Amino acid sequence: MLPRFFPTRLKKAASSLLHKSWKCSAQNHAHVKYLAAQRSTFGKIRYLNTSCALDTDKESENERSSKKAKTGIMLVNMGGPSTLDEVHDFLFRLFSDKDLIPLPAQSRLAPWIAKRRTPTIKEQYSKIGGGSPIRKWTEKQGHEMIKLLDEISPETAPHKCYIGFRYADPLTEDTLEEIEKDGLDRVVAFTQYPQYSCSTTGSSLNAIYRFYKNRNMESNVKWSVIDRWPTHPGLIEAFAGSIKNELEKFPETAQNEVVILFSAHSLPMSVVNRGDSYPAEVAASVHGVMEKLEWSNPYRVVWQSKVGPLPWLGPSTEEAIKGLCKNGQKYMLLVPIAFTSDHIETLYELDIEYMEETAQKAGVEMIRRAASLNDNPIFIKAMADIVKSHLESKAVCSTQLPLRCPMCVNITCNETKEFFRNQKIK
Amino acid sequence: MLPRFFPTRLKKAASSLLHKSWKCSAQNHAHVKYLAAQRSTFGKIRYLNTSCALDTDKESENERSSKKAKTGIMLVNMGGPSTLDEVHDFLFRLFSDKDLIPLPAQSRLAPWIAKRRTPTIKEQYSKIGGGSPIRKWTEKQGHEMIKLLDEISPETAPHKCYIGFRYADPLTEDTLEEIEKDGLDRVVAFTQYPQYSCSTTGSSLNAIYRFYKNRNMESNVKWSVIDRWPTHPGLIEAFAGSIKNELEKFPETAQNEVVILFSAHSLPMSVVNRGDSYPAEVAASVHGVMEKLEWSNPYRVVWQSKVGPLPWLGPSTEEAIKGLCKNGQKYMLLVPIAFTSDHIETLYELDIEYMEETAQKAGVEMIRRAASLNDNPIFIKAMADIVKSHLESKAVCSTQLPLRCPMCVNITCNETKEFFRNQKIK
Repeated sequence: MLPRFFPTRLKKAASSLLHKSWKCSAQNHAHVKYLAAQRSTFGKIRYLNTSCALDTDKESENERSSKKAKTGIMLVNMGGPSTLDEVHDFLFRLFSDKDLIPLPAQSRLAPWIAKRRTPTIKEQYSKIGGGSPIRKWTEKQGHEMIKLLDEISPETAPHKCYIGFRYADPLTEDTLEEIEKDGLDRVVAFTQYPQYSCSTTGSSLNAIYRFYKNRNMESNVKWSVIDRWPTHPGLIEAFAGSIKNELEKFPETAQNEVVILFSAHSLPMSVVNRGDSYPAEVAASVHGVMEKLEWSNPYRVVWQSKVGPLPWLGPSTEEAIKGLCKNGQKYMLLVPIAFTSDHIETLYELDIEYMEETAQKAGVEMIRRAASLNDNPIFIKAMADIVKSHLESKAVCSTQLPLRCPMCVNITCNETKEFFRNQKIK
Repeated sequence: MLPRFFPTRLKKAASSLLHKSWKCSAQNHAHVKYLAAQRSTFGKIRYLNTSCALDTDKESENERSSKKAKTGIMLVNMGGPSTLDEVHDFLFRLFSDKDLIPLPAQSRLAPWIAKRRTPTIKEQYSKIGGGSPIRKWTEKQGHEMIKLLDEISPETAPHKCYIGFRYADPLTEDTLEEIEKDGLDRVVAFTQYPQYSCSTTGSSLNAIYRFYKNRNMESNVKWSVIDRWPTHPGLIEAFAGSIKNELEKFPETAQNEVVILFSAHSLPMSVVNRGDSYPAEVAASVHGVMEKLEWSNPYRVVWQSKVGPLPWLGPSTEEAIKGLCKNGQKYMLLVPIAFTSDHIETLYELDIEYMEETAQKAGVEMIRRAASLNDNPIFIKAMADIVKSHLESKAVCSTQLPLRCPMCVNITCNETKEFFRNQKIK
């Protein structure tokens, strides 16, 4: 149900909009923007719980919480440190995660690496406002998504949104405790990574499985998973819209020659060669977006954020910018295709490192970045649509999830896949 | 124009079929199959020219050749040795190609490697019937495509089909001589690789450019290029159909758990990291096919045919088969997603090496391979549709072709792209 301060006319417009197909007309886009403008009165975010409630929305929130939620949606993501003080713990958890980075003598090595890297990473966060905005965006996305869901999927309402971060508050394990306390019997784990990787979504799902394995209590929760959505039409539309908006800011004569660089977080080649499905799904997203843009510009898929000396998947975003400049390309648009919210990889690595430093030094004429999806209403509508379709499908997960990577040796992956596959949600 | 031995009813059916959209009904598929059955009376292939004419089709061929062709279509491909005697020369040309494999002291190393590898490769070809069937299939595909094109694109008819192989007869350079002799003024270079790579299509385009650069004569030919078509609906439909046919041959109870392994020729990581667009386009084809199959089965993209000690893109098809078996997957279907015709990589590497040897040793229960597209009428209809759309678009190439790889250092690539971009076809 849309909150009370929405005029009835707007409620009707929103409701009708949400039942239309993704082949939205320009008029529909205008509707979405209008709704977004109405909602922009939201204020500061409350950081103290595991749900998506916002402070200024207390009235409808109270109304909602007086009824027991029927369906929980847990948005899962790595997360990021909201303040500089959280940087160390974030890094410590990240380097301790065997699903992400299996290290020798991990319990001793992880604290050492975390401590060593904290000053550098703190400095980077201080340059982007003193912390990651990922929690703020995830809370806002979840909050808005739930309102839409209550409208378009009344049979599964009321919905309640939770956030489960892997390395920052609210931690997955704390959120799962709250879900159990709330007594829900139907929860969807909804990955906020459109493209599946064992390093991201896989790690979150393993964390859910481990929580229940280690907890010696019966649970009534029936789980299902939205484990990937790389080419959902709403996602594609939102990215294409961001790109179009940004292309318009280039000189008119140069707009057709702007090289679009779709930049995704890279992976070690050991993960790629194990059979992780992420590179192929990133490519599918890119292909979908370019198709939507009717192949308006030349483009490439590039990979950012490599760390350490071992080989990672390339071409690297940074080297690609330099190489293109060298070969005479002077206009570039970066698109963070594998993230949906702003975070250090967009605000620091793309905006500062690559755009302000690398590109200028390489002699670029103009380089810009497409806005992250953040609270883009087309994206939030897509989120609601994805959950609604998932609930209607009665599926526990995609056909892909139960298949381990061909060269997987992580036994937990097998157990996690069994755990989800055996959920009885019908 | 369809040949004379086609009954009028069939001609009409074919013509009507070709003007329908790619959202074909089951009934349309039946039509296509019926037409294919009628055409299966075609006899032996003539191996002595650079065009796609077939011996048993002399009557219509004579009729066609009495009129000067208006539009030439040159099907480009690496090619393969048609007989064992051609193996050495094929390998020699392949290892001499700096666009494919830049080697130090290439003019001395290439003959040495070719001589050294000839016996092994000859043995492989002898196991698949004494040569590559790629010329036979390309001739047949071209021949059938031209007949359809004359029907559906009368304004650009008569069309004439040529074949330009990179390392086997008919060699690109010989075919270009014939095209010039024929006095055509409009020719389309149509890559037979759906996904663009500098190693395949790029090398063929460089060869066309070099031919004209080295030829000290004016040419009347206006060239354009169909440089990629990884998600053409007809291609996707043809692959999906092959997969469905093959899945039906698995025990009914196992059909849903068959792992579909989309196997494409791998690339050295140096080419991937240079920014070759092939891996992303292969992934786009795979995504398109799985979408068409409504995600019926789990799947992975895997990479075959690595040679030499340097790192290539993985996971390798062979290792993936072994790994999946180890993890309990006992039913697999191999799909050669980056080739359209049978050749040594399907008939020897997939069918014999991986399916008869690797998989059996690894303990697979059942492994099959989806039939290559070869003379699949849905595929040939797609080819005609691709050319028709290309001719209608008046484009010289895709928006992607003019963009060199970010880390490209091959100056010929730049000149080739300029050569095609500057063609005045309007």
